[in-house]
Amino acid sequence: MAHDIETLKSRLAGITLEENPAIVRQKSRDFFWYSPTLKRQLEDVSADIIAFAASEADVVRILSECFALGIPVTPRGAGTGNYGQAMPLAGGVVLDLSRLDKVLEIGPGRVRVQAGAIIADIDDSCAPTGQELRLHPSTYRTASIGGFIAGGSGGVGSITWGGLRDLGNIIRLRIVTMEASPRILDLTGEEVARVAHAYGTNGIIIEVEMPLAPAHDWIETMIGFDDFGEAGAYANALGEQDAILKKLISVVAAPIPQNYFLRHRKYLPQGKHVVLVMVAAIARDAFAAFTARYTGQTLFRSDLISSDEAKGLPPLYELSWNHTTLRALRVDPTITYLQVLYPFPNQLDLVARIHAALGNEVPAHLEFVRFDGKITCFGLPLIRFTTEERLDEIVAIHEAMGAPIFNPHRYTLEEGGMKQTDAAQLAFKREADPAGLLNPGKMIAWEQPDFDFDTGRTYLFPGLQGTI
Amino acid sequence: MAHDIETLKSRLAGITLEENPAIVRQKSRDFFWYSPTLKRQLEDVSADIIAFAASEADVVRILSECFALGIPVTPRGAGTGNYGQAMPLAGGVVLDLSRLDKVLEIGPGRVRVQAGAIIADIDDSCAPTGQELRLHPSTYRTASIGGFIAGGSGGVGSITWGGLRDLGNIIRLRIVTMEASPRILDLTGEEVARVAHAYGTNGIIIEVEMPLAPAHDWIETMIGFDDFGEAGAYANALGEQDAILKKLISVVAAPIPQNYFLRHRKYLPQGKHVVLVMVAAIARDAFAAFTARYTGQTLFRSDLISSDEAKGLPPLYELSWNHTTLRALRVDPTITYLQVLYPFPNQLDLVARIHAALGNEVPAHLEFVRFDGKITCFGLPLIRFTTEERLDEIVAIHEAMGAPIFNPHRYTLEEGGMKQTDAAQLAFKREADPAGLLNPGKMIAWEQPDFDFDTGRTYLFPGLQGTI
Repeated sequence: MAHDIETLKSRLAGITLEENPAIVRQKSRDFFWYSPTLKRQLEDVSADIIAFAASEADVVRILSECFALGIPVTPRGAGTGNYGQAMPLAGGVVLDLSRLDKVLEIGPGRVRVQAGAIIADIDDSCAPTGQELRLHPSTYRTASIGGFIAGGSGGVGSITWGGLRDLGNIIRLRIVTMEASPRILDLTGEEVARVAHAYGTNGIIIEVEMPLAPAHDWIETMIGFDDFGEAGAYANALGEQDAILKKLISVVAAPIPQNYFLRHRKYLPQGKHVVLVMVAAIARDAFAAFTARYTGQTLFRSDLISSDEAKGLPPLYELSWNHTTLRALRVDPTITYLQVLYPFPNQLDLVARIHAALGNEVPAHLEFVRFDGKITCFGLPLIRFTTEERLDEIVAIHEAMGAPIFNPHRYTLEEGGMKQTDAAQLAFKREADPAGLLNPGKMIAWEQPDFDFDTGRTYLFPGLQGTI
Repeated sequence: MAHDIETLKSRLAGITLEENPAIVRQKSRDFFWYSPTLKRQLEDVSADIIAFAASEADVVRILSECFALGIPVTPRGAGTGNYGQAMPLAGGVVLDLSRLDKVLEIGPGRVRVQAGAIIADIDDSCAPTGQELRLHPSTYRTASIGGFIAGGSGGVGSITWGGLRDLGNIIRLRIVTMEASPRILDLTGEEVARVAHAYGTNGIIIEVEMPLAPAHDWIETMIGFDDFGEAGAYANALGEQDAILKKLISVVAAPIPQNYFLRHRKYLPQGKHVVLVMVAAIARDAFAAFTARYTGQTLFRSDLISSDEAKGLPPLYELSWNHTTLRALRVDPTITYLQVLYPFPNQLDLVARIHAALGNEVPAHLEFVRFDGKITCFGLPLIRFTTEERLDEIVAIHEAMGAPIFNPHRYTLEEGGMKQTDAAQLAFKREADPAGLLNPGKMIAWEQPDFDFDTGRTYLFPGLQGTI
């Protein structure tokens, strides 16, 4: 569908717009290319124009004019998503929120910021108060807080605080609706779930209030194990140490670390399965005592190397979560990945059985988290990609064995999530985006209410550019 | 055995001593009288003399002279224990550490204090840094930190941080040994467990370093339920909310609150089972949203009453843990209590079955905690006391149904704990108290290594004053 961009431009005088096709294309993309499936499907997706909002008033004006002209709007933070969250499947406007980047207020235990603020910058602003955000993705230094909330789920910090979905990890979201006269709403408590992790399909997040945790001096360490099962058991038990404050516990099977963690390579003997840990300096002795109960060998400790030696190394969290995948991809472009939940209490057994079944085709990578009050792990296993059919088979094998997949090779909310309608998100979309102009094609429940998730068939948005 | 107190006095010139029998008796007692059994056994226990240490050097000197004269030494903080921990079964010296009360150093995430400092005073000192201790007993305003570590196990804060036994909840203990030339040792990591919860039987704790948590503005609230099982389910699920920061979740069955929480009575309708919660103000909306999912009714919220109204009320934590027992005892002196662990994952079922079996004789009181990484609950049920035999039966019923008892009617470490030798504590006593002069009679493994815990027979210290 052709959108009336010329009229829109005339009505948005004073707002920064960008039509240079190379820039428009670049700002229409995220890290969807981690997935060969999404790479094939979304390669040609592009907006017609990028609009840069520098204020709440700009957002209201852009949404109002787009509503009047029936032009779709897809919000964008820093574009660090992996599932095409911020990619405008139906063209139209990409609403770039990166200029809404102010830290508005810092108090004890909370911070109020504009949605486009970069997560690391927020922490820098909070540092003088001795506080930092509870949770961040491995794209800490590039991702926006609004994008993390709209398209992410958790990450570094989830071993202590659970996920963004948990009541209390987001205090308040301020959003703008997509209507003739856009409303500004503040959502708290149960209402937060209406728009969190909704990819901007039912409101534009412009401001957020987040809880803060103490900004500890975090020691980065790597513990090496000869046996992968023992590495997992250690990581799980460390997660269950209630008084040892930690921010990250990842398990990466050999030879992932040796082959892909290039700048840490000298610390990584062949064959060692590696547990990455970020632990508070106040727990140094407790952590050492706990670790000494296991056979693991300390390969790396950030507090024991010189600042010169440290200079060449990325932060440990940039070896974890989806940065593990990124490091592998950089070395071997045929690698892709999955997102797996190994449910408590059988997580370690399930990990063992699934990886025994799949072998070298699926190198193991676990991220330990608190989930519904218990310690368990997610997996972001690497996949040596062959075909999309085989990828789907690997997904099916996981699910048949009892490990739900959050499929990163799908661009819809439902297929990337729980494979079911989120009633709260859908109901709120009816209120906040009655014309269905926000980020079209991402919410199946809106686009095709009778879609049957049980067939195993992939949803394909009929309006997807390049496929029509 | 008569101790040579006269010689000791001559050698301790310059150190404050107290021989007034009324004061000596008062300083030889704790809250052992919560237990009718201990009340009978320990009523006549008294030291010969009290020595007040005002410095590390005083402690060294007192221990050295007592060692030379073979006089037993029992350390005392504020005497708020409940099992006779600080009661000198063999007479001799009570070493009062209450004058060692200085806060020495406060840093990010940690505080270093002398052992006799009162817990609430430590928090007051830390308050300007926005920090507070992770854990405290319900005797927050009167207990010393050293006494809490030597004789306690957890309490308020354990819902987030687990117990004192967990690696990381005590950073360092500085102790003095009982030898001709007492040594001063700093214990960290695994070594902490040698003297923590050892009742001062194997070293005198003189200084401690503890982790600090953010000092949140804690909202106190009471949620009332018509059904006790539902109250427990709510409390358990609230405990499992990883992102809602809380400090206390207690469940108190009707009619305990109505009969014994006298100053809160007007908030407590007849028949309501009450969940006491301390929740961080930053989680206010999240907590309200979570609570709205349940049938419970908010009976009390500290942030919604006037400061005038608040003035007459004790802090909520003084209705919880062993203060629940205390409030009941003040109204009905025939009440006593137990200490029960309901192990994960069957805690709620076990609570239901045990209380169904015991009925009104044992009114239910649960304290939810993190324990080995999971949420579960301890019980401090009230007991309508009849005889010691029946009390033992009630203990046996709990254990037979799968709920271990930490028996508060026993004055030994083992019988009040895991009913087995703590090898680390025993080994360290051989090193640090070779003559067995520290708090005699409390460690069975030392006094009678062949004692058989499986007979069900109670250990009776042969040197117990008043029984010989």
